[in-house]
Amino acid sequence: MDYLATNLKFDSNGLIPVITQDYKTNEVLMLAYMNKEAYEKTIETKKVHYWSRSRSKLWLKGETSGHYQYVKSICVDCDNDTLLIKVEQVDAACHTGHYTCFYRDVNADGSVKENAEEVKPVGDKSAIL
Amino acid sequence: MDYLATNLKFDSNGLIPVITQDYKTNEVLMLAYMNKEAYEKTIETKKVHYWSRSRSKLWLKGETSGHYQYVKSICVDCDNDTLLIKVEQVDAACHTGHYTCFYRDVNADGSVKENAEEVKPVGDKSAIL
Repeated sequence: MDYLATNLKFDSNGLIPVITQDYKTNEVLMLAYMNKEAYEKTIETKKVHYWSRSRSKLWLKGETSGHYQYVKSICVDCDNDTLLIKVEQVDAACHTGHYTCFYRDVNADGSVKENAEEVKPVGDKSAIL
Repeated sequence: MDYLATNLKFDSNGLIPVITQDYKTNEVLMLAYMNKEAYEKTIETKKVHYWSRSRSKLWLKGETSGHYQYVKSICVDCDNDTLLIKVEQVDAACHTGHYTCFYRDVNADGSVKENAEEVKPVGDKSAIL
């Protein structure tokens, strides 16, 4: 039985939040959303697909940038309403070019500062693409 | 200037998703939501507060269970609409008693299986409480 297809809890917009994490370092890369189709495409292709809320369309991560996310493992939380996907990230998860979208620390005074340690060099993607 | 207080993007329900991560291992513990008050209480007390969507009330994590989350660092994502908080987790993040809410793997056939490796022994909390 496909437990998830019948038990995953999508919200009132038909979406479920997805945390994407580097499978080697456990660094959190981004949070985005899937609808049922994006989930099924991810399972089928082993490349992470999301639902783009800003463009209202299915979004194969890396389709235009080449920055694909290859699925290594998927976990579901206790309430069946959040997914955690460990991936092999090509180059950078963030549209700014940073490896992770969480490249800014919040200081005690509420200001934010770029965390240089989070920025990783862009690798050679020729081996993967 | 308190950058976050003025720039954080709360959704139409006044909430922002928060990923909580073990500060030592980078293990993702849970995803929950904050409203502005929960965010401010978290900054003020250094203990993570959420907004309970099921109970519609401010929720100091650990208030009844003792399973507090002590803030070690906070990051904000590129769009200012998700927070990542690294914490020292007392005992267990999940209400099931598991250390993380993501204690189940999704298999290739869509079934789920408890990942025993994610379950950690309950520690001695007397040193912390």
